[in-house]
Amino acid sequence: MKVAVIGTTGYGGIELLRILHSHPVFQIQSIHSTRGEVPIWKEYPHLFNINDQVLEVINPEEIAEKSDLVFLATPSGVSGQLAAQFAEFNIKLVDLSGDLRLKNTNDYTKWYKHEAAPQTIIDKAVYGLTEWSREQVAAAEWISNPGCYSTASLLGLGPIVKENLIDPASIIIDAKSGTSGAGRKPSRTNMHAEMSENFKIYKVNEHQHIPEIEQQLLEWNEQIKPITFSTHLLPISRGIMATIYVNVKENITLSEIYKIYEEHYQADPFVRVRPEGHYPSVKEVCGSNFCDIGLHLDERTGRLTIVSVIDNLMKGAAGQAVQNANIMTGLDETTGLTFIPMYP
Amino acid sequence: MKVAVIGTTGYGGIELLRILHSHPVFQIQSIHSTRGEVPIWKEYPHLFNINDQVLEVINPEEIAEKSDLVFLATPSGVSGQLAAQFAEFNIKLVDLSGDLRLKNTNDYTKWYKHEAAPQTIIDKAVYGLTEWSREQVAAAEWISNPGCYSTASLLGLGPIVKENLIDPASIIIDAKSGTSGAGRKPSRTNMHAEMSENFKIYKVNEHQHIPEIEQQLLEWNEQIKPITFSTHLLPISRGIMATIYVNVKENITLSEIYKIYEEHYQADPFVRVRPEGHYPSVKEVCGSNFCDIGLHLDERTGRLTIVSVIDNLMKGAAGQAVQNANIMTGLDETTGLTFIPMYP
Amino acid sequence: MKVAVIGTTGYGGIELLRILHSHPVFQIQSIHSTRGEVPIWKEYPHLFNINDQVLEVINPEEIAEKSDLVFLATPSGVSGQLAAQFAEFNIKLVDLSGDLRLKNTNDYTKWYKHEAAPQTIIDKAVYGLTEWSREQVAAAEWISNPGCYSTASLLGLGPIVKENLIDPASIIIDAKSGTSGAGRKPSRTNMHAEMSENFKIYKVNEHQHIPEIEQQLLEWNEQIKPITFSTHLLPISRGIMATIYVNVKENITLSEIYKIYEEHYQADPFVRVRPEGHYPSVKEVCGSNFCDIGLHLDERTGRLTIVSVIDNLMKGAAGQAVQNANIMTGLDETTGLTFIPMYP
Amino acid sequence: MKVAVIGTTGYGGIELLRILHSHPVFQIQSIHSTRGEVPIWKEYPHLFNINDQVLEVINPEEIAEKSDLVFLATPSGVSGQLAAQFAEFNIKLVDLSGDLRLKNTNDYTKWYKHEAAPQTIIDKAVYGLTEWSREQVAAAEWISNPGCYSTASLLGLGPIVKENLIDPASIIIDAKSGTSGAGRKPSRTNMHAEMSENFKIYKVNEHQHIPEIEQQLLEWNEQIKPITFSTHLLPISRGIMATIYVNVKENITLSEIYKIYEEHYQADPFVRVRPEGHYPSVKEVCGSNFCDIGLHLDERTGRLTIVSVIDNLMKGAAGQAVQNANIMTGLDETTGLTFIPMYP
Repeated sequence: MKVAVIGTTGYGGIELLRILHSHPVFQIQSIHSTRGEVPIWKEYPHLFNINDQVLEVINPEEIAEKSDLVFLATPSGVSGQLAAQFAEFNIKLVDLSGDLRLKNTNDYTKWYKHEAAPQTIIDKAVYGLTEWSREQVAAAEWISNPGCYSTASLLGLGPIVKENLIDPASIIIDAKSGTSGAGRKPSRTNMHAEMSENFKIYKVNEHQHIPEIEQQLLEWNEQIKPITFSTHLLPISRGIMATIYVNVKENITLSEIYKIYEEHYQADPFVRVRPEGHYPSVKEVCGSNFCDIGLHLDERTGRLTIVSVIDNLMKGAAGQAVQNANIMTGLDETTGLTFIPMYP
Repeated sequence: MKVAVIGTTGYGGIELLRILHSHPVFQIQSIHSTRGEVPIWKEYPHLFNINDQVLEVINPEEIAEKSDLVFLATPSGVSGQLAAQFAEFNIKLVDLSGDLRLKNTNDYTKWYKHEAAPQTIIDKAVYGLTEWSREQVAAAEWISNPGCYSTASLLGLGPIVKENLIDPASIIIDAKSGTSGAGRKPSRTNMHAEMSENFKIYKVNEHQHIPEIEQQLLEWNEQIKPITFSTHLLPISRGIMATIYVNVKENITLSEIYKIYEEHYQADPFVRVRPEGHYPSVKEVCGSNFCDIGLHLDERTGRLTIVSVIDNLMKGAAGQAVQNANIMTGLDETTGLTFIPMYP
Repeated sequence: MKVAVIGTTGYGGIELLRILHSHPVFQIQSIHSTRGEVPIWKEYPHLFNINDQVLEVINPEEIAEKSDLVFLATPSGVSGQLAAQFAEFNIKLVDLSGDLRLKNTNDYTKWYKHEAAPQTIIDKAVYGLTEWSREQVAAAEWISNPGCYSTASLLGLGPIVKENLIDPASIIIDAKSGTSGAGRKPSRTNMHAEMSENFKIYKVNEHQHIPEIEQQLLEWNEQIKPITFSTHLLPISRGIMATIYVNVKENITLSEIYKIYEEHYQADPFVRVRPEGHYPSVKEVCGSNFCDIGLHLDERTGRLTIVSVIDNLMKGAAGQAVQNANIMTGLDETTGLTFIPMYP
Repeated sequence: MKVAVIGTTGYGGIELLRILHSHPVFQIQSIHSTRGEVPIWKEYPHLFNINDQVLEVINPEEIAEKSDLVFLATPSGVSGQLAAQFAEFNIKLVDLSGDLRLKNTNDYTKWYKHEAAPQTIIDKAVYGLTEWSREQVAAAEWISNPGCYSTASLLGLGPIVKENLIDPASIIIDAKSGTSGAGRKPSRTNMHAEMSENFKIYKVNEHQHIPEIEQQLLEWNEQIKPITFSTHLLPISRGIMATIYVNVKENITLSEIYKIYEEHYQADPFVRVRPEGHYPSVKEVCGSNFCDIGLHLDERTGRLTIVSVIDNLMKGAAGQAVQNANIMTGLDETTGLTFIPMYP
């Protein structure tokens, strides 16, 4: 099966190449970028002698002719336009940007601060939080791949929200991400000298993943109220931890909560609910497609602490994209994704 | 004025030496450790040619004779016993450990998992959260210096708790610390190869600073209920950020909240309330005695996010200890503490 | 084919598990440690739900019965004794320690500061610098796997030393390693708070890899004189760079030198000689078995600078061990080692 | 005494502000930048409530009227032009750029790849490697402040080169720097995600500090031949280590070498020659003006290894600039520079 990657020179694109290189079924037919016809190893020397492909211009018709599936690893604002160009062709599509995630275009405009893609384009895409939408993904032509923060947060919250076991107005997500999450465009914020030995909070209650998370939470449970959501920058390259706080309904015990999480995720190869008393650290999923979850119920306060960690470039981007592509094309979802985390 | 430092070889002790070296009034009369008579520069080569002092055994009588004030930078469990030995002598004392902080010895035993110091010893010490107890500190003979997490959390919460403007059961503190906070005893948790490119959560709702924070909150506002408190390890050496979430009472605006914070702290040289829309990062206080505070009120949820950062070895330990010692001895509280943060 | 891993809880052992997990031929029959019967995921939580194996005691006879090959990832001093116990059994063996590397036991005692293994045991092992001893490895029963610094240094120096194109007394190796190279035993040197934002030199001209490097250089070229060798600790977990300086014989050009390197390594899947003007960085081989080499000839001085980088846990330990094991068992040497470097 | 800082928003400029804030004699009269009239704390929030000054345009005449001394913390290419504008006014000047360092303008053009400042402007400046030119500095109107790599290298090499005890063609400098050395202009090379867990070599034998180092070496010893010089980027913000290799003349012992270094530097408050067997790490000088030196003579090779570490923003830039300014204005050279290194 042949695949194309558009937006290859970003971190999401380059992580797709890492996965696809060892994928037993998908072959990289072509790689694309607006950067011009440069061998990809000149942009990323770690690919020297591994990948001899040259970046090509983006010609949707030609891509659709030669490939069975295309990954859009392009930025928000670009992906929506590109997707529209692919709409008339017969090719599966997985978009890693935020452009197709919000079904309500007003929400998009409000949080992303620029115009949304056309509604018909948006409606064509299934939101691919794999563990919660496997059947829709299997039937889909287009996938809108979830955001990195959204993936960690939603996988952490899913079971207890769906079961309606929390105060619907009590959700607080304190999220922390490595700097690769901000992409490869140099800026002062992302300079090494500024981030080394540093830790920053940013976009307090203003991050564009907020409406995406709320949209999914409401689908699970229509009583859910607006969430509190803070994002922080960690002085690491990869990894996200979402520390989530919710008030649980009375009389629920931690064992019952564990039972719900374990049952929900027992058939999910990439979600690991850690045993009671164990909490995951970000390095324990580094380079892998796992989302690891830890749980603590404080009897003094009746509040549940949910710890959810992912590698932002894997389960938070390229890994989940391939997981979805696997399912869309009838493969086992773990195909090409059976990396062990790299530790230490 | 002459001071002695006990427990010099820990990170708190060594930071005291850094401050005291440039302090215009306090002179380091002697440094002490159980490690035996070693020149301090052999333990800390950065002090070569700067400090020629040799670690001495701990003889309270002799210390009390030669010095006007003693800093105990010893671990919890040790400080209480040492303090008891100083009780009969005429010497001011600042203890950096947790041993004299909790007025209720049952709380101490429960959270510290070993026996508390005698009640009389504990009662002799004033809790030295400087900005909130300047008068008591000025009158004190003994100071119990606040914990690092407690300092960041309490300075962030003080004004709004004192003014009774929040739901008293809504306090959640998501705290993150550099690895120097865990002290200088090697352990697997603190190894560089394990922490580099990592981020960990630990002691979820079990950290011994919880009762310390609650004790002070209750003193400000007796309606306060138990708090939710998570601690995380950052892959940096120094710095703490506490991201604090509280539900505010209805009809309060962010401007009103700012006014309260700014008035509370306007005369405090080491607390900087940042302007609206600005949030501090940990590196912006690195090496200094500042506590910087940012505030955000989310109108969608009625929840206030308070960001409070300190250098855990300065305002969270040695810096606040010297600030308290300055006040106890009639000096201006900024004496010897006017470092600018080191950036980048 | 079945393999056993002894010394599993060190970083070398755990990296073996990472590779072997995806190896299409080798199956991990058993894992061993002196630590007692603990599930490996309790020591390394990133293996939760991935590897359910329990650490077993070390019984050479039983291991030899059940497995076809054993990896010794045990420390120097231990490996030699273990190897001796395996000598009478019919099992292939790859030792990752320094115990079987030095053919001269006096050298071992001098540089390792403890007694050497018996000469017969040492002589049984082939020094497995794969690219330079493929035939001997193929015929070997036992392999002594090269040290991490040695691998980077020797692959960098091999072609030009073998071709006798340098002043034999001019070799200087300035080597830098991540902290995982020092193993998993906590020590003050390896603490995160001490290494973060730090860079240290250690064992100046005293590192135990010096005689190992010289032994191989002399095998290539008996005129080689003692080398200058400095080791430094980088504030990263993984990766080694050796910056090597040699005086080349007169009239040699950089093109000629490139030609020699490219010819020597053209059939070697894991050595990448970078194009002129390009130098590798350690992250560009992270997680992979590659050794990347850059070259610069300074016409002002007639001195060649060789830059050689590896992942110390891969090509510097577990990766090369599996590469050797592949060859010993008749597999293609790249089997199970086709990871792309993880970047960023 | 009043001073002005031009180029305040770079890391060198901001470090000048850190030092000058506590300097007992120099007062910051004005700060300047081409960035427009912005309060400096808006560019550097760590200065909030500490420094209320607003960046001013650069008017040499006005600056010369109001201040006694001006620091140029502007980039190479800019400083030379600015200096020329100050030539006609009566004001002392310390330039931190490379523009006034090379007395031979051809060398400048060759290594800096743009045109040199006029020869008369260059000749006006004394090269301010303080420990070696104290008298010229005291008499100077203008100082050209040495480069960061140059300072570490030259202080490490000075005594043995001056005493003519080495093979003049044998100097190899393997230098490593933190990322703040590359300035505050964002670039891909300096992004956190690219540098975290990384280590890079760059400008192999092409760094513009090479002619600067050679110029000074030749002044000490006219037999010195071209040097080999490699620069590497460390994943830390601050700090330089130069590991220097030289062949010493026969029959010299390490004790004799120590004696030479200790005598040369005995009256120098900022150079610390460490005792035999001790080597400095970069964190041991962090935030201070020290240059620490370690020495090792390998009897097997007759080669001396010199380890020299500085904080690149202090002794490598702003610290040495103030040290020179102190001397130029008749102050003790340590004035305002008596910080202890910040550790850990």
